[in-house]
Amino acid sequence: MNDVLIIGTVALDTIETPFGRVDRALGGSATYASFAASFFSKPAIISVIGQDFPREYTELLKNKGIGLDGIEIKDKTFHWEGAYEFNMNEAKTKKTELNSLEHFKAKVPEKYKSIKNVFLANIDPEQQLEVLKQMDEPEFIVMDTMNFWIIHKKGYVIEAIKKADVVLLNDGEARMLFSTVSLVKAANEALKLGPKAVIIKKGEHGALLFTEGKHFNAPGYPLELIKDPTGCGDCFGGGFIGYLAKTKDFSERNFRKAVIYGSVIASHNAEDFSLNRLKSLTMAEIEKRYREFEEIREF
Amino acid sequence: MNDVLIIGTVALDTIETPFGRVDRALGGSATYASFAASFFSKPAIISVIGQDFPREYTELLKNKGIGLDGIEIKDKTFHWEGAYEFNMNEAKTKKTELNSLEHFKAKVPEKYKSIKNVFLANIDPEQQLEVLKQMDEPEFIVMDTMNFWIIHKKGYVIEAIKKADVVLLNDGEARMLFSTVSLVKAANEALKLGPKAVIIKKGEHGALLFTEGKHFNAPGYPLELIKDPTGCGDCFGGGFIGYLAKTKDFSERNFRKAVIYGSVIASHNAEDFSLNRLKSLTMAEIEKRYREFEEIREF
Repeated sequence: MNDVLIIGTVALDTIETPFGRVDRALGGSATYASFAASFFSKPAIISVIGQDFPREYTELLKNKGIGLDGIEIKDKTFHWEGAYEFNMNEAKTKKTELNSLEHFKAKVPEKYKSIKNVFLANIDPEQQLEVLKQMDEPEFIVMDTMNFWIIHKKGYVIEAIKKADVVLLNDGEARMLFSTVSLVKAANEALKLGPKAVIIKKGEHGALLFTEGKHFNAPGYPLELIKDPTGCGDCFGGGFIGYLAKTKDFSERNFRKAVIYGSVIASHNAEDFSLNRLKSLTMAEIEKRYREFEEIREF
Repeated sequence: MNDVLIIGTVALDTIETPFGRVDRALGGSATYASFAASFFSKPAIISVIGQDFPREYTELLKNKGIGLDGIEIKDKTFHWEGAYEFNMNEAKTKKTELNSLEHFKAKVPEKYKSIKNVFLANIDPEQQLEVLKQMDEPEFIVMDTMNFWIIHKKGYVIEAIKKADVVLLNDGEARMLFSTVSLVKAANEALKLGPKAVIIKKGEHGALLFTEGKHFNAPGYPLELIKDPTGCGDCFGGGFIGYLAKTKDFSERNFRKAVIYGSVIASHNAEDFSLNRLKSLTMAEIEKRYREFEEIREF
């Protein structure tokens, strides 16, 4: 039985960083998020791919126990081409071929409608809302987005935030969405819209969890080499909701642990291109890094 | 008996931020550092001021028990004019009038030569080294610098790093000094030069402590309003060495606590211009925020 439903993109990524290049590698927000969640729970995906989607990628997801019955197949797969420069902070998009994503309408299969945990990973916010409409009665909703949607569909982004229990934003998005340089102010503005928690992802600087009257600061893991940060935010979200779905404890205290598990998966993901590092990642390695996170913030 | 000797600048600062402006307010690296250190220990300053230095500023430092016998008086006081734009990350220097600082030669009074803890706060690295030459046998040396010296006197900066036990760099300086975008790599390069510890100050993102084989990640305090970040790095360093001088425990474990105390003072300092917030800061407030730092790290 799947216990986390994830809507997002499944993509082919062509990526260049100072440390190498991959062509049409497996990517997309739902891909990274579901792979990360699969370490703790049984996620299923709502998305669309094309006839060109390599069978080995489908097999990789299937072998992780990820539910693929909500993935439509149509035309060609969404293809994103991006490059990271020396500072690795933000990708420069070189090409976006939406392909089958362009006219994608989310459709939740009957068997997924009763899933209680939903992750609205980065995709058109209208489709995020569409998924929520089709679900029976989701109990816990996590929502992510990106600057593109904040610029072009701000109204829908706000609507999705209002329906979410936990909102994920990176620092740049939070500042943009609430027109302030202060992340604390931005988080407080987001909380006013209704969610129980707002998490601001700061890449190498860690993550901030804001809830009513409480604050948690998660450290960034001290990676000496970041090979490819693509998908780290999605891995964070997937790890976060996956851990919560597994433990069924939605307290602020457990959110903190979930933030660290999300960070653990994300920090591993940055160590190699595409899903290369996550493919071989073990629970023992996850637990080991979790303990390292404890150690680096002890005083 | 003074227990921390601090060489650095004592300045008049004219500063504009989005939240206000001050004219010829009390500033300078030695000023902020000694004021911060004075909450824990008895610092003394090596610096130079001019005939124009307001008596009320001298009184303010004296009343905090800060030793002023190493402050030479000559010509006019160093005057810095800077502005912070909306993002408050870095000051734009609008004017620098070195005045008496231009030909300053550090001279350590006899009575300060036996002090065991030395903070080489931000000033010309040649004068930092000069102070070390004049000291009897300092046991614990903390060293800070800035991008200007890394660009113009890199050789002396490196020499000072080699003599220090703990080196403080902000993230931009660390990247510049070791020509790498990775703070972990930069810190490891700095450790190779000899210091026991390297601390990378990241402003709102907290601070990273690197020692042989160990890492500590100190959170940034979630300030909703940063009125003026001037002097925060100096306050951090002053609080850090002040706490260590008081506790006389130079273990990695105690460095971590000292990093938090430094962060506590620095975060308060950002709440108002010049020394305005620190002037009224109490030990009870310091301990309260220290506990908040504990709370925001717990998971």
